[in-house]
Amino acid sequence: MDSKVVGILGGGQLGRMMVEAASRLNIKTVILENGADSPAKQINSSAEHIDGSFNDEAAIRRLAEKCDVLTVEIEHVDVDALKKVQEQTSVRIYPSPETIALIKDKYLQKEHLIKNQIAVAESTAVESTAAALQSVGQKYGYPYMLKSRTLAYDGRGNFVVEDVSKIPEALEALKDRPLYAEKWAPFTKELAVMVVRGLGGDVHAFPTVETIHKNNICHTVFAPARVTDTIQKRAQLLAEKAVSAFTGAGIFGIEMFLLPNDELLINEIAPRPHNSGHYTIDACVTSQFEAHIRAVCSLPMPKNFTSLSTPSTHAIMLNVLGSPDPGEWMQMCKRALETPHASVYLYGKSNRAGRKLGHINIVSQSMDDCIRRLEYIEGKSDKLEEPEANKAVAGASSKPLVGVIMGSDSDLPVMSLGCNILKSFGVPFEVTIVSAHRTPQRMVKYATEAPERGLRCIIAGAGGAAHLPGMVAAMTPLPVIGVPVKGSTLDGVDSLYSIVQMPRGVPVATVAINNATNAALLAVRILGSFDPVYFSKMAKYMSEMEDGVLEKAERLGSVGYEEYLRK
Amino acid sequence: MDSKVVGILGGGQLGRMMVEAASRLNIKTVILENGADSPAKQINSSAEHIDGSFNDEAAIRRLAEKCDVLTVEIEHVDVDALKKVQEQTSVRIYPSPETIALIKDKYLQKEHLIKNQIAVAESTAVESTAAALQSVGQKYGYPYMLKSRTLAYDGRGNFVVEDVSKIPEALEALKDRPLYAEKWAPFTKELAVMVVRGLGGDVHAFPTVETIHKNNICHTVFAPARVTDTIQKRAQLLAEKAVSAFTGAGIFGIEMFLLPNDELLINEIAPRPHNSGHYTIDACVTSQFEAHIRAVCSLPMPKNFTSLSTPSTHAIMLNVLGSPDPGEWMQMCKRALETPHASVYLYGKSNRAGRKLGHINIVSQSMDDCIRRLEYIEGKSDKLEEPEANKAVAGASSKPLVGVIMGSDSDLPVMSLGCNILKSFGVPFEVTIVSAHRTPQRMVKYATEAPERGLRCIIAGAGGAAHLPGMVAAMTPLPVIGVPVKGSTLDGVDSLYSIVQMPRGVPVATVAINNATNAALLAVRILGSFDPVYFSKMAKYMSEMEDGVLEKAERLGSVGYEEYLRK
Repeated sequence: MDSKVVGILGGGQLGRMMVEAASRLNIKTVILENGADSPAKQINSSAEHIDGSFNDEAAIRRLAEKCDVLTVEIEHVDVDALKKVQEQTSVRIYPSPETIALIKDKYLQKEHLIKNQIAVAESTAVESTAAALQSVGQKYGYPYMLKSRTLAYDGRGNFVVEDVSKIPEALEALKDRPLYAEKWAPFTKELAVMVVRGLGGDVHAFPTVETIHKNNICHTVFAPARVTDTIQKRAQLLAEKAVSAFTGAGIFGIEMFLLPNDELLINEIAPRPHNSGHYTIDACVTSQFEAHIRAVCSLPMPKNFTSLSTPSTHAIMLNVLGSPDPGEWMQMCKRALETPHASVYLYGKSNRAGRKLGHINIVSQSMDDCIRRLEYIEGKSDKLEEPEANKAVAGASSKPLVGVIMGSDSDLPVMSLGCNILKSFGVPFEVTIVSAHRTPQRMVKYATEAPERGLRCIIAGAGGAAHLPGMVAAMTPLPVIGVPVKGSTLDGVDSLYSIVQMPRGVPVATVAINNATNAALLAVRILGSFDPVYFSKMAKYMSEMEDGVLEKAERLGSVGYEEYLRK
Repeated sequence: MDSKVVGILGGGQLGRMMVEAASRLNIKTVILENGADSPAKQINSSAEHIDGSFNDEAAIRRLAEKCDVLTVEIEHVDVDALKKVQEQTSVRIYPSPETIALIKDKYLQKEHLIKNQIAVAESTAVESTAAALQSVGQKYGYPYMLKSRTLAYDGRGNFVVEDVSKIPEALEALKDRPLYAEKWAPFTKELAVMVVRGLGGDVHAFPTVETIHKNNICHTVFAPARVTDTIQKRAQLLAEKAVSAFTGAGIFGIEMFLLPNDELLINEIAPRPHNSGHYTIDACVTSQFEAHIRAVCSLPMPKNFTSLSTPSTHAIMLNVLGSPDPGEWMQMCKRALETPHASVYLYGKSNRAGRKLGHINIVSQSMDDCIRRLEYIEGKSDKLEEPEANKAVAGASSKPLVGVIMGSDSDLPVMSLGCNILKSFGVPFEVTIVSAHRTPQRMVKYATEAPERGLRCIIAGAGGAAHLPGMVAAMTPLPVIGVPVKGSTLDGVDSLYSIVQMPRGVPVATVAINNATNAALLAVRILGSFDPVYFSKMAKYMSEMEDGVLEKAERLGSVGYEEYLRK
């Protein structure tokens, strides 16, 4: 595909997944890492790798000699060596050494973001003395965060200073490290966005996700984040703005805090693939790893290539962490293999407590489904139900897509004709009695809860004053179809007018008097406007209806109208 | 995950993709293939591979010494050597050597299927003499297929005997090979199904696909096949039945013919991953390669793990073939990288005309989308439209989701209120004049083409006899919303009755007289029943409407009704 050879500083799981993405495109990669058996080297035998540290200038130079492009899977590399390679050779380095330098020192990173008007938690550099830490406490209040400026990851290098008495412990925990202090951000959620930056400076955000940490290590990632669309969009824009403040190409991971007032603050940035982006392998059009390879090799990055695979894709990523008894995580992986729509990725690393050994991606059409599977995989539940979406289409599920309601059981003879149609189309539906006038509370509950129960549309039949369809429509954003049921007087015109003459703002899709058949067919058309299975069933129904009339016409033509009437 | 080591006879692209699937599960693989740079060896440096032929008994024994399980990526292996390993060691071999022996001789394969009552084209063993071939021609008629029993692939080893004069040419083309003749199957389509078989004999079919060959080499695969659901299901059952007739575990590729009378005949079976199953990497819950690894390592194979990722997933696989000018296929791959929802897989093989160098998977929610992208990738079109689904959510596109039509420009003042609503919700829509009575042909065209143009629903306004909404509904499976427009007499009741009183079979969602606002709101609700973006916009609209009324109530309470009326 591309004749460039890409050198990667670091050979852990992030490098491994970069290598996998590159191999699929025939792009050669060379790894710089100590030893011969690192995760990235295990799956790459088409190059002679470099045995050495990504902090060793000589090793970096040996790597550069074999490559056209250098990139990193970790930011704690020898930046000065990279700068020299950049100046003295034609090898391109992405992200730029300047960007890596700014990011690897987390305090410089913060200052750079502030200089670029990007929202971050307030922070200050601080000496490693009790007096300095006390003066921070006076300024920020307690608790505050004390952080190492460098070499911090997975929570190592962070210390929560809960009150003045914890200062000696904090100094001991982070001794011999350059420090800074950060004002406590009382976040309600932690969000993250992967952003890929092209050589031309174009930035493309992946979806906004929600990260859950346990013991300072990423435990699960929910994609998309369970926040409003507006917050998701704002997080993507903030992440794109932050990445625009740095130079060079490649993928960046942006972690942020969501505050109680919906404000977003950037927590920190990684200039490389990130644990919060592993879900992209199964849930997005392009994985974060392929996006990175495309960026550093100047390959095409089409519009929307960072979006979810489908608009209704949901995913959860669960990290596989080492434990004293390896049976624990092996059992979890086995349960994942038993789970439909779950994929297991192990990194070829030996077991050690707390070590990131792999991850599991769960993908489905709804977050509820993903959560149910997560609970099975984590051993919190022994039940593994089937994905709703498959069931809906198969028509085999009991979970209804259409609700059929009526004001009285006297409407049932009419409404049952609609139920027959839904049954014949294989639409999962429910049917019940809800009276606007006699059970108003039940009606409120039914209408309000309909969307979260998975209903896609409601058919309501009523006669006389016929308030049910309009009242239900007033309390749900779902489409409501109204069937005017003919009563003993006025021929059903009363019901028709009550149902169809809704005020501006609240529509009811009204069908002919007593025509529940058409109400059900309309429900199928609504399902079919997005679900190709129902669309083609409707097309087939219409063509059979046409055939039926044509047959009758043929018979009428052949036997004559008198004989036809006689039969 | 599993401590078993898997040895693979053969190191081509099928082996490569097996290795990739195994590595993700921490399962070690060892390759037997000539040379050190075969596709499978390139991505596997965690084992010492065997340099040798999969037909060399000594090499097979060396491989077996390093492994717990042996499997194949090609059937043309030394079966006797495998049988000896099976007898003399504890190494398990999947699929069983007996199965490989039965399948690698295509005539034995056919006889075995017939013995198991599985439908295949009629065939007969034949000597390599003109007399024998002439007698076949007398029995089967011309054309018939002359096939080599062994070592045939990608069309090599097959010869179409068009008439008696072609017999000398056929004998020359297939000389020195054991032959059989097959009665011509006048197929309308070629279908294929991958089936994975567990150690316990359980069989799981992947979706039925359609294969298109050019010059006897697989060109494209359409998944699912463009045939009825019934035929798809029958093909899966036939494939499962065929695989049940063999022993051992692993994946099998079953190619079949669909005849004009909808009968299905098995063409041939491969006891390994197959080109027709490459789409599974992106379009199915589990890829054919991971399914194979799971089968031969006795890992879990949950229900539905072979199904499409979502019920509406569609995919096309396009092979990347070598050509005298490598620029040709490189250009094609570049276009694929420019295409959203397309993934490129290259196998690390050197260019040679006709050689399978890689493949491209295109995945979308509709086959039309996939075909549009295929045409771009193959250079047949320069237009790369966006996927509908993404556009709907972004709301940013000019491609309409809702069509607003009316019988006359005198309806525009009423209908424009609906357009304003659609605009305010960010729904892409179009608006035009279509008269049922004055432009009947235009109406037919509009209604018929609406779904393929991407419309999800149609709003039709009409007055008087008001035939437009019902006639459009009669000619499209999409939901149609009717707006009765009030004329100069009868107060609009004429239009209302014409629109709402549709006969059973053809529903029109009717709203109040002149209430195009509600028609548009109903359209948004229909979009929102599947698209969460429109759903939450509708919820927001309803809550703002509520706030508006509450504000008025507050003002009425504070200023009193007289002052309120005065203002």
